[in-house]
Amino acid sequence: MLGTILHGPGDIRCEEVAEPTILHPTDAIIRLAATCICGSDLWPYRGLNDVSQPMNMGHEYCGVVVEVGSAVRSVKPGEFVVGSFCLSDNTCPHCRFGFQSSCEKREFMTGAQATLARVPLADGTLVATPELPSADLIPSLLATSDVLGTGWYAADAGRVQPGSTVVVVGDGAVGLMGVLAAKQMGAARIIAMSRHKTRQDLALEYGATDIVAERGDDGVARVKDLTNRIGADSVLECVGTKESMAQALACARPGSTIGYVGVPHGVEFDGQKLFFTQVGLLGGPAPVRRFLPHLMDLVLSRKINPGKVFDLELPLADVAEGYRAMDERRAIKTLLRV
Amino acid sequence: MLGTILHGPGDIRCEEVAEPTILHPTDAIIRLAATCICGSDLWPYRGLNDVSQPMNMGHEYCGVVVEVGSAVRSVKPGEFVVGSFCLSDNTCPHCRFGFQSSCEKREFMTGAQATLARVPLADGTLVATPELPSADLIPSLLATSDVLGTGWYAADAGRVQPGSTVVVVGDGAVGLMGVLAAKQMGAARIIAMSRHKTRQDLALEYGATDIVAERGDDGVARVKDLTNRIGADSVLECVGTKESMAQALACARPGSTIGYVGVPHGVEFDGQKLFFTQVGLLGGPAPVRRFLPHLMDLVLSRKINPGKVFDLELPLADVAEGYRAMDERRAIKTLLRV
Repeated sequence: MLGTILHGPGDIRCEEVAEPTILHPTDAIIRLAATCICGSDLWPYRGLNDVSQPMNMGHEYCGVVVEVGSAVRSVKPGEFVVGSFCLSDNTCPHCRFGFQSSCEKREFMTGAQATLARVPLADGTLVATPELPSADLIPSLLATSDVLGTGWYAADAGRVQPGSTVVVVGDGAVGLMGVLAAKQMGAARIIAMSRHKTRQDLALEYGATDIVAERGDDGVARVKDLTNRIGADSVLECVGTKESMAQALACARPGSTIGYVGVPHGVEFDGQKLFFTQVGLLGGPAPVRRFLPHLMDLVLSRKINPGKVFDLELPLADVAEGYRAMDERRAIKTLLRV
Repeated sequence: MLGTILHGPGDIRCEEVAEPTILHPTDAIIRLAATCICGSDLWPYRGLNDVSQPMNMGHEYCGVVVEVGSAVRSVKPGEFVVGSFCLSDNTCPHCRFGFQSSCEKREFMTGAQATLARVPLADGTLVATPELPSADLIPSLLATSDVLGTGWYAADAGRVQPGSTVVVVGDGAVGLMGVLAAKQMGAARIIAMSRHKTRQDLALEYGATDIVAERGDDGVARVKDLTNRIGADSVLECVGTKESMAQALACARPGSTIGYVGVPHGVEFDGQKLFFTQVGLLGGPAPVRRFLPHLMDLVLSRKINPGKVFDLELPLADVAEGYRAMDERRAIKTLLRV
């Protein structure tokens, strides 16, 4: 079958690989309906993470179950399923507390940019649809697996409420999903910080009420202008750099919460400053599994269309071009047809 | 009248000072029923804060209104009132959002270790009792002004819920009030970290279910043992040192929140570590005014007895001994009879 291997920085190849097999009784094998490339896949691609040995790429997935291990009870061959990029048993205390991304047995999905993939902890991880979904819903169902679930968590962690004023820092795919999530949660004002026309347009389509193209002090001043000098009730930090977090902190009103989902790189918080600005923080890898049934329902009932975030579609064989397009910012997010 | 002046580190004196007068139409003058010494008063006393000029000490207060400025509408002479250590107009956007401690007009109370005190922003700050309270309730009413309000905020910011497992770091007066608050909010398990017998006893009286005397790794191990290796749903950080915050972080389960009310000294948070441990944070100077009517009701109806936290009572004239007793940890908190 075809699989995607990163051999070294910039060296990504779609090639013949061995088919996955059931390794543990709790595994399932699925045939991918579609898969995609994540912003986080670009870190090793760009050499920012270690790539000392070939890596099986891909952690966003949906498709049809072809085989299950002997212990799997909740899904069966022939069913269409979606799962989180975080694999979890969904029964441990952390899962029951709604933080499946900190499951005691947590693993991270790999090898999903392929024809077939092995999904460990299938019972806890996979959610089946009531019937096979129509083909046009596949991109949106795929989005629930990570990018939508992560944007949703940013809004949930940031405590977006009906009527809230929300600032979204970052106009990548996750930031755009954050806009969609804030809109669904009833935010009255959604200020998207974006400098790129195509992303601004998509943000507006997903529910942004205002676009701020400025960054740094100018960006903060603009947000303050738009909020009567008050700042935002919730800030969704969807980048993870020092600059983007500084932006988030400066836009946040006292008593607000920053939901941060960009993995922080070089970010430090000064305790005393955080104390006196009285801004709350909650972040982490998104517990997508908590939201997955609800998000899949919203997609299946056509209430949301997160799949529009994919602005490039390629066959799996052209995965290298998909990485290049995202690396060069020609694409927001690439969907791979399997 | 008598007032308390800090002339330099360790040099605290009760002396004759001028009576306060109405300076702004929004001021009130109150005759103190009692006042007290705060843990934070010890910073300048110990020379840890700048004392380059004499300071009027005291920010915790309750008593009878003797005079009001021409703009004051909500309280009148003869009424018994309590106010927060943070003075606020209670009408600005931050106040309406429940964060009066970040009021646009915020000032901090001073000069309350005295016979009379001027309270700026009286309408927004002071809450009157329906009638003059009986004398035995004065210590508990005084406690609502800061120490109880701050402990309460720690529990509120830490999102204590009915059934929660809570760890309280710090057995000073604020930590003990945090125990009381967690109990009132319905916590099922309250683990107080305390090494001092008298404080342990008071923590148990206020609702602690477990005492952990160990600190550092041993303290964390003990908390993990007590919580089936899970950690706490909420942690109340009531100290503000690097060590106490490290303790708080290590006791917090994924998805939990640390409510921190000890002013952080030398505390830094590593963004990536905070991300992967998935612990939430909210702190700051307590918006006591938000809680004050409820806390005063609880005291007046004798449902809580926060005044027990005062384990030393002295006449105002002996204020220097009160500071010494707290500095030397002979007293948890000193009440000054005026």
